[in-house]
Amino acid sequence: MRISELSARSQVPIPTIKYYLREGLLPQGEQTSATRAVYDEDHLRRLRLIRALIEVGRLPVAAIRKVVAAVQDEDLPVHHMLGTAHYALAPDVEPDADETAWREARDRARTLTGDLGWSINPDAPALDELAQSLLTLDRLGMATDPEAVLPYARAAHALAEHELAGVPFEGPRDAAVEHLVIGTVLYGRLFDVLRRLAQESESSRLLGPSRAADGHSV
Amino acid sequence: MRISELSARSQVPIPTIKYYLREGLLPQGEQTSATRAVYDEDHLRRLRLIRALIEVGRLPVAAIRKVVAAVQDEDLPVHHMLGTAHYALAPDVEPDADETAWREARDRARTLTGDLGWSINPDAPALDELAQSLLTLDRLGMATDPEAVLPYARAAHALAEHELAGVPFEGPRDAAVEHLVIGTVLYGRLFDVLRRLAQESESSRLLGPSRAADGHSV
Repeated sequence: MRISELSARSQVPIPTIKYYLREGLLPQGEQTSATRAVYDEDHLRRLRLIRALIEVGRLPVAAIRKVVAAVQDEDLPVHHMLGTAHYALAPDVEPDADETAWREARDRARTLTGDLGWSINPDAPALDELAQSLLTLDRLGMATDPEAVLPYARAAHALAEHELAGVPFEGPRDAAVEHLVIGTVLYGRLFDVLRRLAQESESSRLLGPSRAADGHSV
Repeated sequence: MRISELSARSQVPIPTIKYYLREGLLPQGEQTSATRAVYDEDHLRRLRLIRALIEVGRLPVAAIRKVVAAVQDEDLPVHHMLGTAHYALAPDVEPDADETAWREARDRARTLTGDLGWSINPDAPALDELAQSLLTLDRLGMATDPEAVLPYARAAHALAEHELAGVPFEGPRDAAVEHLVIGTVLYGRLFDVLRRLAQESESSRLLGPSRAADGHSV
């Protein structure tokens, strides 16, 4: 297909496609004359991935370049390719100003995932996020003992099993990464809203109108 | 205590405390002379709540005013007080440009929570978030059938039961709202990072180094 059709089918404007070509995010088309190139389904799939990384993952171009390089490197095992996308999605974490507290929190994050039997790269940026999360909860007086944290870890693990089983590993590499990125971000948001709705429902059950009528609600 | 001690114990600067007093977020102290007032533990607790709403909930002052009004209105049942805080945390959702799709998505959100047996106020803003979430997933070709969504709903419900059981309903109203707000936001973040770590672990189990050595990983 010509660039105009690629643009129509992908809903990506032609100048944007040309920008992706210049940046090397999208492979060049097959040159059929000095001024004309043709594109195929691989280009369409790559454009879908780039849009997912920008619009859903909210990634900057530098991060997208890394993800695309991992997708293109056929020698890179799929687990590492997915890891590249995953790590790009992780927010930057500043080390805590209190060095001792920060070191302890990082140790706790590693101990926690180790005790759960999870297989995590020791350099995974999400371990720093976990450390920060535990430290913030501690400082605000919220529980972070195993009894408090394990229900979250178990629920997270059950969902992760379900989610990884749904990634289309047999198809093209772009499609697997696109699925992982969209799924990680959007099912995460879906879960977050379902949790707040479930909290409302639980609050209603524990304290709601019928209890209020009995005078138990204040 | 005097305002200087209130500031020291709450770690909130005196000018900020005076601003909260002027805005009516913090009740006036007991006036002991024309230029002097004293404050008590209730003020300290209210300051903790305001800080949680600002720093953890990221709420603007107008939203905080509503939450504080609900906390102060002792005739308002606890379920409604918690609902006020909860709804303040929900992001604004713009109706989708496609009116028909938006109406259908809203109906689906209501049907879904109804089928789950959840007791939700039909005007809960999170229902619009759920509608938006389902619509976005649909458009990106991700599954939103019951089989895809129920694992999230079940996990959300189990965690919500655990969370509501931990809210200190027997104590002061400020403390219950503070706990709910901090818990909703921070355990939500904790869950999000644990889910990404669990995904990495699952990816490693399905596709990781040992599989790679067998030549199954690409």
